[in-house]
Amino acid sequence: MSIPSVDASRMKADFDALAEVGATPEGGVSRPAFSEAHLAARRWFRQRSQAAGLETKVDSAANHSAILRQPGATRTLLLGSHLDSVPNGGRFDGALGVVAALEVLRTVKASGIRVPVHLEAIDFTDEESSVFDYLGSRSAVGGLDFEILRSTLRERPDLAPRISQAGVELDRIASARRDPASLAGYLELHIEQGPRLLQAGAQIGIVESIVGIRSHRLVFRGRPDHAGTTPMEARADAGLAASAFNLSAREIVMEQFPECVATVGRMTFSPGAFNVVPGTVEVTLEVRAPDEVRSRALELQVLEQAKRDAAGFGCTLDIAPYGVSEAAPMHTRAQQAIQRACEALGIRWLKLSSGAGHDAQMLATVTTTGMIFVPSVGGISHNPREFTEWSDCVAGANVLLGATLILAHHAEFDP
Amino acid sequence: MSIPSVDASRMKADFDALAEVGATPEGGVSRPAFSEAHLAARRWFRQRSQAAGLETKVDSAANHSAILRQPGATRTLLLGSHLDSVPNGGRFDGALGVVAALEVLRTVKASGIRVPVHLEAIDFTDEESSVFDYLGSRSAVGGLDFEILRSTLRERPDLAPRISQAGVELDRIASARRDPASLAGYLELHIEQGPRLLQAGAQIGIVESIVGIRSHRLVFRGRPDHAGTTPMEARADAGLAASAFNLSAREIVMEQFPECVATVGRMTFSPGAFNVVPGTVEVTLEVRAPDEVRSRALELQVLEQAKRDAAGFGCTLDIAPYGVSEAAPMHTRAQQAIQRACEALGIRWLKLSSGAGHDAQMLATVTTTGMIFVPSVGGISHNPREFTEWSDCVAGANVLLGATLILAHHAEFDP
Repeated sequence: MSIPSVDASRMKADFDALAEVGATPEGGVSRPAFSEAHLAARRWFRQRSQAAGLETKVDSAANHSAILRQPGATRTLLLGSHLDSVPNGGRFDGALGVVAALEVLRTVKASGIRVPVHLEAIDFTDEESSVFDYLGSRSAVGGLDFEILRSTLRERPDLAPRISQAGVELDRIASARRDPASLAGYLELHIEQGPRLLQAGAQIGIVESIVGIRSHRLVFRGRPDHAGTTPMEARADAGLAASAFNLSAREIVMEQFPECVATVGRMTFSPGAFNVVPGTVEVTLEVRAPDEVRSRALELQVLEQAKRDAAGFGCTLDIAPYGVSEAAPMHTRAQQAIQRACEALGIRWLKLSSGAGHDAQMLATVTTTGMIFVPSVGGISHNPREFTEWSDCVAGANVLLGATLILAHHAEFDP
Repeated sequence: MSIPSVDASRMKADFDALAEVGATPEGGVSRPAFSEAHLAARRWFRQRSQAAGLETKVDSAANHSAILRQPGATRTLLLGSHLDSVPNGGRFDGALGVVAALEVLRTVKASGIRVPVHLEAIDFTDEESSVFDYLGSRSAVGGLDFEILRSTLRERPDLAPRISQAGVELDRIASARRDPASLAGYLELHIEQGPRLLQAGAQIGIVESIVGIRSHRLVFRGRPDHAGTTPMEARADAGLAASAFNLSAREIVMEQFPECVATVGRMTFSPGAFNVVPGTVEVTLEVRAPDEVRSRALELQVLEQAKRDAAGFGCTLDIAPYGVSEAAPMHTRAQQAIQRACEALGIRWLKLSSGAGHDAQMLATVTTTGMIFVPSVGGISHNPREFTEWSDCVAGANVLLGATLILAHHAEFDP
């Protein structure tokens, strides 16, 4: 098939204008969900969509959409990402996906191409978990846990007015759910946030899955002895047990679990004095794996090792699960559509998993979902220095456009 | 020589009475220096000394003394320890040494034995470093750093009135210095605070030296990457570098430095989140060795290893010295006097070094100094459960008495 191209300079103008909203002195943006800058970015998106002659919509979870209706279509193919950022974040994370989705709709509209599904560019609410992680996409797939939401709102009475003012309708947020039968799929363009595409010399990443994340708090318990009077061999040093575990968790991953990671982000020593053997050390542990089989196997193996490392230093171990996010495989048909688009455009691609979470993992639970990555220079992420070459952004948008057209035509034969 | 014995039941009555002062529900005492309980314990000591017909004295560093004068003597043999405790500490640490010193003076007085030196039981101020470490014994040896004292008092304006009220005369504290020519020596009975005497089946420890302590703050600096998107091999994880160092410091000590210890009491991870590779980890490091040669060699070797461990994980290392306390060898003549007393009494002794600091390390810089240890059950220290069998306390007091008489007679031939 022949694929039209996006208007690279129009898209650049959009990208640059958006980067002004919440711009920071360091060259990034700071648009935490529900902040003034975030709301301004969403207003900007609505205005640009209207200026392009697209229908706009805000649902009860404050997800913002621009819609290109197709006569006779009954289902909708979603293209999207998010306009919120972490505090003091970069210009590309999320924003690129929304700008590209809008540009794809404009390009299709201008080209006169008819597709059998409605196209909707969507900006999901609070992808960066400023208040409630994936509030927008979770609501869209009907996956919101109302009990957790209610208890969050009870604990932080400042939240309800803030998110209501931002357009979230708490009393009817359930209505943000999209009927899966009404959806033809979801495609998201995003920066990689890691170094692999550049290392492999590929311009596009086809995401095979979004990793599963399993987190635990581990507490190593030894004995807080006097550091001067307790010989080395008489100690039960929780710091040594935790240190040994940190190293062995890494070894397990590197030797047996390629494509996975394990991270000890924090150890807290108690009592924490120069001259007292640490009696208790609390450790945060997070493992990520591209699929649930490896996610569970890795979790099991590092926890068993933690018990051995504790025992090896005369300590005991408490394990408290902290959180689970299941691995989300991307749909084969979506991956194929992205791959065909790359091949039609002559762009080098690489299949990889996403180590970070995305709205796509929510959408994947209900519809044909795919993700397109573009390279991040230095793998830098959540940082004002986050950067993607503009040519790669354009390539990403063109692949998004191509995959959209391919998936849209497929979609009419879908059950 | 024949050695008289202390009055064990009189000493027990004293010990129990003193343990009531600042007693805690857990069975210990809480008498931080300059607290109400501490001052009450010192009043109790003065009253008991006066009741025994001893001269009493308080110097400008608030050191409290009971003196048994000997006609014609020009020099003084000091016997002492401290009545302050750590917050929520035990009944034996310090208190035993003061009670035993008082009992030795009473026993000598009652026995009618004449020795060629004055005997002085002394309770030094703030051994546990509640305000200013070793304030009393440091002042007694003329080792007080007035600049540091002044800056401490400037930083904490509440201190000066508190310590003045406790008898410290800040404007003439220099006068607390004892002329070394006026001293015949210093002997201190103390609990071991460690497990070695009981392990060796010895009732008395003859301290060969008080360990040297060298402390550093180490900062391992890596890169705080996204835990999801940064593969293991692309990380510069400061937590792994610090963990590796913790283990290798232990290995260096255990393989090459017997009788020494190395302690990492605290690691502080930054940014310290579940999902961020730790970019910076600050580590407290303390090494202790019985002599300065090993103290310096151990310090050098672990710091060199820290650099290698940092580099091994792609990190850099900052080293900031935090404190030095030089190893204090006990005087050979004092050790011999203690050994002869043990042998005369038929008591099993063991030579060992003190892993904890004591007032004796101050006195050792100016006079013939020795320390006598008695066993600590379970090696428990700075804890209400700290415990020494009463028979061991009595044995310790008798050895203190014997060593006093031996050293006192030696003393007359001293230069």
